[in-house]
Amino acid sequence: MTRTPSAVLTSAAELLGEVRRTTPLVQCVTNVVTVNFVANTLLAIGASPAMADVPGEAELFARDIASASLVNLGTPSGEQRLGMLETAAGATAGGTPWVFDPVAVGALPVRTALAAELLAARPTIIRGNASEISALAGATATGRGVDSQQDVDDALDAARTLANATGGAVAVSGPVDLVTDGESVVRIANGDPLLTRVTGGGCALGGVVAAFAAVAERPIDAAVAACTAYAVAAEFAAAVANGPGSFAVAFLDALDALTADDIVRAGRVS
Amino acid sequence: MTRTPSAVLTSAAELLGEVRRTTPLVQCVTNVVTVNFVANTLLAIGASPAMADVPGEAELFARDIASASLVNLGTPSGEQRLGMLETAAGATAGGTPWVFDPVAVGALPVRTALAAELLAARPTIIRGNASEISALAGATATGRGVDSQQDVDDALDAARTLANATGGAVAVSGPVDLVTDGESVVRIANGDPLLTRVTGGGCALGGVVAAFAAVAERPIDAAVAACTAYAVAAEFAAAVANGPGSFAVAFLDALDALTADDIVRAGRVS
Amino acid sequence: MTRTPSAVLTSAAELLGEVRRTTPLVQCVTNVVTVNFVANTLLAIGASPAMADVPGEAELFARDIASASLVNLGTPSGEQRLGMLETAAGATAGGTPWVFDPVAVGALPVRTALAAELLAARPTIIRGNASEISALAGATATGRGVDSQQDVDDALDAARTLANATGGAVAVSGPVDLVTDGESVVRIANGDPLLTRVTGGGCALGGVVAAFAAVAERPIDAAVAACTAYAVAAEFAAAVANGPGSFAVAFLDALDALTADDIVRAGRVS
Repeated sequence: MTRTPSAVLTSAAELLGEVRRTTPLVQCVTNVVTVNFVANTLLAIGASPAMADVPGEAELFARDIASASLVNLGTPSGEQRLGMLETAAGATAGGTPWVFDPVAVGALPVRTALAAELLAARPTIIRGNASEISALAGATATGRGVDSQQDVDDALDAARTLANATGGAVAVSGPVDLVTDGESVVRIANGDPLLTRVTGGGCALGGVVAAFAAVAERPIDAAVAACTAYAVAAEFAAAVANGPGSFAVAFLDALDALTADDIVRAGRVS
Repeated sequence: MTRTPSAVLTSAAELLGEVRRTTPLVQCVTNVVTVNFVANTLLAIGASPAMADVPGEAELFARDIASASLVNLGTPSGEQRLGMLETAAGATAGGTPWVFDPVAVGALPVRTALAAELLAARPTIIRGNASEISALAGATATGRGVDSQQDVDDALDAARTLANATGGAVAVSGPVDLVTDGESVVRIANGDPLLTRVTGGGCALGGVVAAFAAVAERPIDAAVAACTAYAVAAEFAAAVANGPGSFAVAFLDALDALTADDIVRAGRVS
Repeated sequence: MTRTPSAVLTSAAELLGEVRRTTPLVQCVTNVVTVNFVANTLLAIGASPAMADVPGEAELFARDIASASLVNLGTPSGEQRLGMLETAAGATAGGTPWVFDPVAVGALPVRTALAAELLAARPTIIRGNASEISALAGATATGRGVDSQQDVDDALDAARTLANATGGAVAVSGPVDLVTDGESVVRIANGDPLLTRVTGGGCALGGVVAAFAAVAERPIDAAVAACTAYAVAAEFAAAVANGPGSFAVAFLDALDALTADDIVRAGRVS
C-alpha cells in the first residue's frame, strides 16, 4: 500500500459521494435470515437493493440490470444455489462487479462444494471473517458458522492467496478489518462489538461492499471504503445505543447521516 | 368519484375502525425480503397476518380461512409460484378478496409470465408503483425493479385498463398515490419520502390494502382507506424520526396509535 | 412441582448465567417471517444462532455442531421439511436437545402431517400456544394459525399427554405461560400483551427455550427459565415502549441487559 492513510480516507469519502450520487442497483442473492437488514443497510448508505435470486432471472439481472451483485452463502437452498451460479455467470458475462460472502464455509458440505464453484468464477471481492477466509483458501476450518474464533491477521496469508487467485480484493472482518489485493494490505480499526450482537452485521457489509464496487475503479478501494464507512457509522451508532436493538436502529440512521467529512475525520486506517 | 373528499375520509376512518374491530386474518404469500415488515405492519394496523404459502395449504387457507389474501411477486421461488396460483384459485373459489402486488414485473421474465396468469385470475385490488402498473397493463416497462422512475399520473391509463379488466381497483403508489376502479380516480397526497428509504414500504402497503379489503364493500374504498391510513401514519412517524432506522420503528408505533380522527383531520384526498 | 417459587427463580437465574457463560450455538430451522427476530433474540440473550436448514447440512449440524436445535413449522417449504426431519434425526443421533414449535398445526394439512413425524422423533421440549398444543395432542383444532383463541389451562391435559409421550417438557404460551413435564406444572405470570403485537413473539421464545435447553439438565427447568427470562424482559421493554415498533427494539435491549437478579426479583412463578 503506497497510499497514505489520509489518501485512503479521501478516496473512501469520495466513493461514498459517488454511491449517493449514482444510487447503484445492488442485486442481492442472500440468505433469508438477514436479507431485510441487508436491504435496509443498502438503502441507508444510498444504494438501491434488489433481491433477484430466482433461476431464470438472476443471470439476466446480474448481466444487464445490476450495478453490482452480492452472493451470500448463508441459507443456500437448492433453488438459490442455482441462482447463485447464474448470478456469477451473468456478472462475469456483463462485466458487473460481484461480491462473494462465503458464510460458514468449511464446516458444512453443501455450501463448501458450492463455494469452490463460485470461487472459480473469480469474484471481484470476497468478504468474510477469518475462519471463512481461511477455509475458503483451503486451510483448516475452525469456525462454528458465522462466528469467527480466529484472528483477522491469522487469515492474512489465506486472504492474499484468494486475492491472487481471483485477481480481486479480499476483506477479512474482525475487531480490526483487513483488506488486501494480494499485494497491498489496509487495516481499518473502526467499528464496535455491538455489530456482532445484531444478526447480519457481516452480511450487510457484503452488500455495502458491492455498492462501493459499483462505483470504484479498483476492488481494493471499494472494499476499504465500504469497510471504513460501515465501521465509522457503527461507532456513531454505538455511542447512542442502549443495547443491540437500539443499535441496529441507530446504525441505519447513522449510515444515512454519514458524510464524507465523517469518514476523513473519524476513519482509522493503516 | 362523486364523493366529496370529506366523505372519502369519513369512509376511510370507518373502515379503520372495522379493521380494528374484526382483526381480519390476512394471508400473505410474499417475498422473503420484507415479509417480517409486512407482518408487523398488519399487526400494527390491527389485523392478523398469516404466511401460508406452501402448496397444499395455500389454496385451502385462501378459500376457507383467510379474511383476505396478498400475493406479492418479490421473490418468486418455484414452490412459492405454485402457492401463489393456489392462493388466487382458493380466493376466487371462496369469494375471498385478494390483493396482487406485481413487484418488478416487466423487466424479469419468470415473474412477468406468472403475473399474466395471476392477472387473469382477476385480483380484487392491484397495488404497484407506476412502472409496475404500466408494465402489467402491457405498456413498455421502464422500471429497475422495485424502484419507480415513472410518474404516478403516467400510469393512470394503465391503471384504468387493469381495473376494467379485473372489475376491481388499482392503486398506484408514489409521492401522490392514485386509486381507480376504472371510472373514479382518487388521489392521496399524504406520505413521506422516508417510506422509500425502508425496504418493504410498498409491500407492507399491499398487506394493509388486503386488511381493508376484508372489511370494505367496494375494492376502491378499501384501497383508498388503506393508502390514506398508511400515508398519514408515515407523516406522523417522519415527524419524530432521525433517519430510516428510527422511521421504521416510529411508523409501526404510529400505525398502532392511528385514530379515525387522525385520518379525517390529516388526510388529503382529492 | 416440589420446588418452591423461589427455588424455581434461583434455578432460572443460574441458567441465564450459564447461557451467557457458554454462548450455546442454536441451530434454527425456522420460518422466513420471523427468522431475523429469532436470531436477534438469541444474540440478545447471549446465545449464538445459526440457520442451518439445508438438506445435506441440517443433520450434520444438529448431530455434531449445534448446542441445541429449534424446528419451527411456520413456513414449511418442501426443502425445509426435509431439513426439519434431518435436524430431528441428527439431534437424536447426537444427543442434542431440540425444541419443536408446531406453528399453526391442526388447521393445515402439510404441516400437520409433518408434525406427527416430528413428534414421533420425541422433541426435548415442545413450545406452542394452547390451540397448537391441543391440536398436536390430537384434540380438536380451533386455532386460526399463529393466533390462539384458547385458554392456556384448556391445554393442560394435552400438554401433559405430549410430555408423557416424548419424555420431555411442554411449554404453553399465553397471558400466563404453563410448563409441564407431565407431572409437575409451573405457571409463569410475567409478560406483556405487546409481545403478541410483534410477529415472532412465540417463535423467538422457541429459540430462547433451545438456548436454555443447551445448558439445563432437565427440559422442564430449561423451559421454565426461558419463559421467565423472556417474559420479564418483555415487561421491562413494555414499560419504555410507545407501541409495537419501539417495543421490539426495547425488548432486544432488555434481554441483553437482563440480570440474574432481575429474574429473581421480577419473576412471578407458581
